[in-house]
Amino acid sequence: MKNVPFKGIIAYPITPFDQNEKVDITLFKKLVERLIVSGIHGIAPLGSTGVMPYLSDEEKEAITEASIQQTKGRVPTLVGVSNLTTEKTVHHARFAEKAGADAVMIIPMSYWKLTDDEIVAHYDAVARKISIPIMAYNNPATSGVDMSPALLKRLLEISNVTMIKESTGDIQRMHYLRKELGEETAFYNGSNPLALAAFTAGARGWCTAAPNLIPELTIELYHAIEEGNLEKAKDVFYQQFDLLKFIVSKGLPRAVKAGLNILGEEGGNLRSPLQPLTEKDTEELKNIIKTVLN
Amino acid sequence: MKNVPFKGIIAYPITPFDQNEKVDITLFKKLVERLIVSGIHGIAPLGSTGVMPYLSDEEKEAITEASIQQTKGRVPTLVGVSNLTTEKTVHHARFAEKAGADAVMIIPMSYWKLTDDEIVAHYDAVARKISIPIMAYNNPATSGVDMSPALLKRLLEISNVTMIKESTGDIQRMHYLRKELGEETAFYNGSNPLALAAFTAGARGWCTAAPNLIPELTIELYHAIEEGNLEKAKDVFYQQFDLLKFIVSKGLPRAVKAGLNILGEEGGNLRSPLQPLTEKDTEELKNIIKTVLN
Amino acid sequence: MKNVPFKGIIAYPITPFDQNEKVDITLFKKLVERLIVSGIHGIAPLGSTGVMPYLSDEEKEAITEASIQQTKGRVPTLVGVSNLTTEKTVHHARFAEKAGADAVMIIPMSYWKLTDDEIVAHYDAVARKISIPIMAYNNPATSGVDMSPALLKRLLEISNVTMIKESTGDIQRMHYLRKELGEETAFYNGSNPLALAAFTAGARGWCTAAPNLIPELTIELYHAIEEGNLEKAKDVFYQQFDLLKFIVSKGLPRAVKAGLNILGEEGGNLRSPLQPLTEKDTEELKNIIKTVLN
Amino acid sequence: MKNVPFKGIIAYPITPFDQNEKVDITLFKKLVERLIVSGIHGIAPLGSTGVMPYLSDEEKEAITEASIQQTKGRVPTLVGVSNLTTEKTVHHARFAEKAGADAVMIIPMSYWKLTDDEIVAHYDAVARKISIPIMAYNNPATSGVDMSPALLKRLLEISNVTMIKESTGDIQRMHYLRKELGEETAFYNGSNPLALAAFTAGARGWCTAAPNLIPELTIELYHAIEEGNLEKAKDVFYQQFDLLKFIVSKGLPRAVKAGLNILGEEGGNLRSPLQPLTEKDTEELKNIIKTVLN
Repeated sequence: MKNVPFKGIIAYPITPFDQNEKVDITLFKKLVERLIVSGIHGIAPLGSTGVMPYLSDEEKEAITEASIQQTKGRVPTLVGVSNLTTEKTVHHARFAEKAGADAVMIIPMSYWKLTDDEIVAHYDAVARKISIPIMAYNNPATSGVDMSPALLKRLLEISNVTMIKESTGDIQRMHYLRKELGEETAFYNGSNPLALAAFTAGARGWCTAAPNLIPELTIELYHAIEEGNLEKAKDVFYQQFDLLKFIVSKGLPRAVKAGLNILGEEGGNLRSPLQPLTEKDTEELKNIIKTVLN
Repeated sequence: MKNVPFKGIIAYPITPFDQNEKVDITLFKKLVERLIVSGIHGIAPLGSTGVMPYLSDEEKEAITEASIQQTKGRVPTLVGVSNLTTEKTVHHARFAEKAGADAVMIIPMSYWKLTDDEIVAHYDAVARKISIPIMAYNNPATSGVDMSPALLKRLLEISNVTMIKESTGDIQRMHYLRKELGEETAFYNGSNPLALAAFTAGARGWCTAAPNLIPELTIELYHAIEEGNLEKAKDVFYQQFDLLKFIVSKGLPRAVKAGLNILGEEGGNLRSPLQPLTEKDTEELKNIIKTVLN
Repeated sequence: MKNVPFKGIIAYPITPFDQNEKVDITLFKKLVERLIVSGIHGIAPLGSTGVMPYLSDEEKEAITEASIQQTKGRVPTLVGVSNLTTEKTVHHARFAEKAGADAVMIIPMSYWKLTDDEIVAHYDAVARKISIPIMAYNNPATSGVDMSPALLKRLLEISNVTMIKESTGDIQRMHYLRKELGEETAFYNGSNPLALAAFTAGARGWCTAAPNLIPELTIELYHAIEEGNLEKAKDVFYQQFDLLKFIVSKGLPRAVKAGLNILGEEGGNLRSPLQPLTEKDTEELKNIIKTVLN
Repeated sequence: MKNVPFKGIIAYPITPFDQNEKVDITLFKKLVERLIVSGIHGIAPLGSTGVMPYLSDEEKEAITEASIQQTKGRVPTLVGVSNLTTEKTVHHARFAEKAGADAVMIIPMSYWKLTDDEIVAHYDAVARKISIPIMAYNNPATSGVDMSPALLKRLLEISNVTMIKESTGDIQRMHYLRKELGEETAFYNGSNPLALAAFTAGARGWCTAAPNLIPELTIELYHAIEEGNLEKAKDVFYQQFDLLKFIVSKGLPRAVKAGLNILGEEGGNLRSPLQPLTEKDTEELKNIIKTVLN
C-alpha cells in the first residue's frame, strides 16, 4: 500500500522577511499557526510561495524545523527540497526527513534542460537516501522541463515516489495523466484557477497559497466536491475565482503579503529583487477581497 | 428575453462524398436521421466536422436545405455560415434563415488577422440582415484570431448575437468569460476533451461530432451534470475520454468516417486533399471503440 | 537542369476593389505596370497581398489574365493558385499555365491539418496536370501547417516542384533548410523583416509587397548583396526596416493601399470585412514613409 | 565615452569537475589557457556554459580568481555574477571587480517573474556598488523574463550598463533593438545558430562556447565580417552550422565536454544531475566534428 499522506487543501505559507531582508522565523511560525487553525489539511513550507529558491541552505533548514515544530503533527507536513544539483537535493531531503517531515516535494529544477534519464536518476538518488514519500512536481513554467506521462510513469516505479503534483494549468493534461497512470495514482492540482476542474477530474488535493487569505472558501470547495454537490462547488469556486486569478497573475509572495496586510495581518517584507505590490494593484486586491468575502 | 434555442448535446454531422468526391445528399440525410433518433438535442450542419470550407456555395445550400428537411423541427438546427468575406456570410446567413434554420453559427474567418472593429462590423452587417439568433464562435486555431472577452462583450451588444461557443481548449478561459460576461450568458463548449470541465463550469451545451459514434455516452454525460451527479459525470466522461482525444487529434471528418465504418455504417468518402485514416490509426480507433462501448 | 525562373525582387501587387467592392481590373493593371517599370525582377499576383482567398474563381481568373497581359513577358510571372481542395488547385494551376504564367505558387491551405502524405499527394496531383514549375510555400501562420525539411525534401522529388518559399520568419529555419536540402535548391524569402538575414543566408529571391511603396530600396538591397557589399546592404536594410515592420504588422493589403494614397497614387478600396487603416495608423505610416524616403 | 571592453569572439569556458564532482581548478585553468592561445578576443567564465547556477558561492569565487590569474590581461574578462537575490548579485559583482574582472554579465534570473521596476532596481543596486561596466543579458528561455526594448532602454540609462547581450534566437529582435536603441549601442549575440545573421545585423561580438571546439572557425567568421567579405562569411558559417546546432540542442556543458574528449582533450566530469552525452549522441558529434574540420 502506497504511503500517501495528503488529501484536501494543502496550504503553502509565505516566508516573511524582516526589515533587513532576513528570514523572520517568529512571524513565519505565526503564519503557519494561522493556517492550521483555519482548518486546512496539510502544510507545505518551502514552495514557490515560500520563495525557497531565494533562501540559503541555513535558512531552508530553519524554516523546515520551524514548520514541523509549529505544526506538531496536527496536519501532515510537505517540505520543498528541490535543488539544481542532486547532491543538494539529497541533503535537504535527508534534513527534512530527520526533522520530521511527512513527505518531500521535488520539482526537477533545470537550468540546463534535463533528459528523461537524468531526471529519473535524480529522483532515484534522492529516493534511495530517504524513507518518507516523494511528491513529484511538474511545472514547466518554473522548472523549464515538462515531464511527459511516460516519464511520470517511470518516476512512479521508484518505490517512494507516490504522489504527482501537476501545475501546467491545462486540465486536458490532468485528464490524460489520470487515464494514463490509473485513477488510483494520487494526483494533486497546483494551478489555482483550475481548482474546480481538477477536483472534478479526480484530483486528491489542491496545493495552494490561497488559504493564507481565504481558507474557508478553499475548504468549502473541497467539501462540496466530497459531498458530490456540483452546484455548490461551482458557486463557491466562482466566488473565489477573481482572487485566485489575481494572486497567480501578480506573483504569490507579493499578493499574499499584500492580502495579509489588507486583512489586518502582518505579512513581513519581501527579499529583493521582489518588491511589494504597487499601490494600484493593492487597491484592486482590496476590492477583490471585499467582494469575495461578502 | 434573449432567443437561445440550444441546450445539451449539439451534434455535428459530417458531409459525406461519393466516389467522385461529389456531396452525397442521400447519405447525408441518413446520417442526420441517425443522429436525431439517437436523442441528441440539436443538429449543426456545415461545421468544421462538415468540412464547410471545402464546399461550393451550391453545395452549402443543398446541405442546409437537406438538414432542415430531414430534421423537420424535431430538434433545433444551427447552420454554419462563416465566410472570409462579409458579403458571402450575409448571403449564406439569409439563405439559412429562409430555409428554416433556428440559428446560425459564425466564426470570424480571417486570412488577414481582423481588428476588433472589423469583427464587430462583420457580425453587425450579418445581424442586420437576419432575424434568427447568431452563435459567435471563438476558435483561434482555425480562425487565426482569438476574440478577447472585451470583444465578445461588444458582440453580445448586437441584439441577435445571443450565444457564445468557445473552443480554445483552455478551461480557464471559460471560467474567465463566465465571470466577465455574466452567468446568464449562454456559453457552449466546442472542445471535446474539455466536456466535463466545461459542463462543470456552467456551459449550457456541448457542440460535438462525438454523437456520430457514441451518442448515448455524450447524452449520459449531459444528464449526469443536469442531475448534479458529479461521480457519474466523471465516470462517463473518463469512459469516452480516449475516443474524444482520438477523434480530435486525427481530424474529425477522417475519424468520424472511419468510426462509422467500424460501427458498420456508411460514412461515404472524403474530398481531397483529405484522405482516409491510415490503417494503423484505424486499428487504434477500432480498439478504442471496442473498449469504450464495453 | 531545374526550371527556376525567379531571382531578386519578386513583387506582390494588391488586388484593388471599386466602391462596390468589385475587383477593379483597370486599376490592377496600372499597379502592375507601376511595379514593372520600377525595375523589379518578377511579378506575383494572387498572393496574400492580393487577397486571393477573398476572391471568386472568376475574379482569380480575371486577375491572372490581366497580370500576364500587362506584364507582356518583361519579367516572369508567378501566379498564386492555392486552394483548400485539390480539385480547385488543379483547376487554377491549369488556368494559370494556359494563360501564360511562368510558374505557380502553392501553399498547402489546410482547414483540417493535413498529414505529410496528404500534402505530397496534393502537390503531386497538381504537378501531374501542368508543365510549368511550382514554388512550394511554407507559411504556418496562414496555412496552419508547418512543412518540415523532410517533407520539403519529398516535395522537391516531384519533378516540377523546383522552388521553396519560406515565411516562418525564423532565420534559423532557413539556415537549416539550406544545409538539409543543399545550396543548389532555390530558396525564396517571404518574411519582409528577414530580408537582410535571408539574402545573407543565400536566398535567391525576396517575395515582397514592399515594392508597391519602396521599389528602389528593395532593389538596392538586392544589388548590394549581389555585389557582396555587406556594409551597404546593412545600411539600406535598416533604412527600410521600419516600413517593412509596419506593413507586416498592420496587414499588407491595408498598409499598401494606405501607403499608395500617401504617395499620391490610387490604391482602390478593400473588400469587407477588411477595412482601411485607422487614421492614427495612417499618420504613423506617413511619418515612416517620410523618414524612409529622405 | 562608454566603457565597452569587448569585440569579436567572446569565449565561454566550461567548468570541469573531478570524479567526486568537485570543481577542478587546475583543469579549468588549462581550458582557459587553451582558449586564449587559440586567438579569441575575450573570456567569459561563469556563464551558462560554465554551469554557474550549479556552483556554491565559494566555487564561483575560485573560478573568478582562477580566470583572471590565468588570463593575465591578455584578453578582457567578463564574469557572470547573476543571482536570484539582489544581495548575492551585489556580492559576486563586487568580488569580480576586486579580483580584476573587466566587466560583469547579469541576467535578471527570476523564479518569480520580475516587473520592469524590479529589474531596473536590481541592476541599479548592483551598478551603484561597482565601477566596472555591466553587460545586461536577455535570454527569456533561461531567465523566464523577456526584457522589452523599452526596458533595455531604461537599463542603458544606468551609467555603467554599457552592453546588451541578446539570446532570444530571433534575428528580428536584434534588428528591432538596433533600430530602437541606436546603432552606437554595443550589442552582442548569444545565440550560436544566429552568428552570421547577427554579425550581418551589426552585432559587436559573439558570446559563444563554440571556441572550446572550433576556435579557428569562429574567429574566421568574425574576420570575414570585419573585411566585409559576405561570401566567405557565409561559407565559413555554413561550415560550422551543424556543430553550432548540435551543441545548442544537446546542452553546451554536455556537448563541449564530449567534444573535448573527441578532440583528445580532457573535459573533466559533469555535476549531477547533468550526465555525459549518450553514446549515440557522442557518435553523431564525432561525425559532425570530422566533417566540420575537414
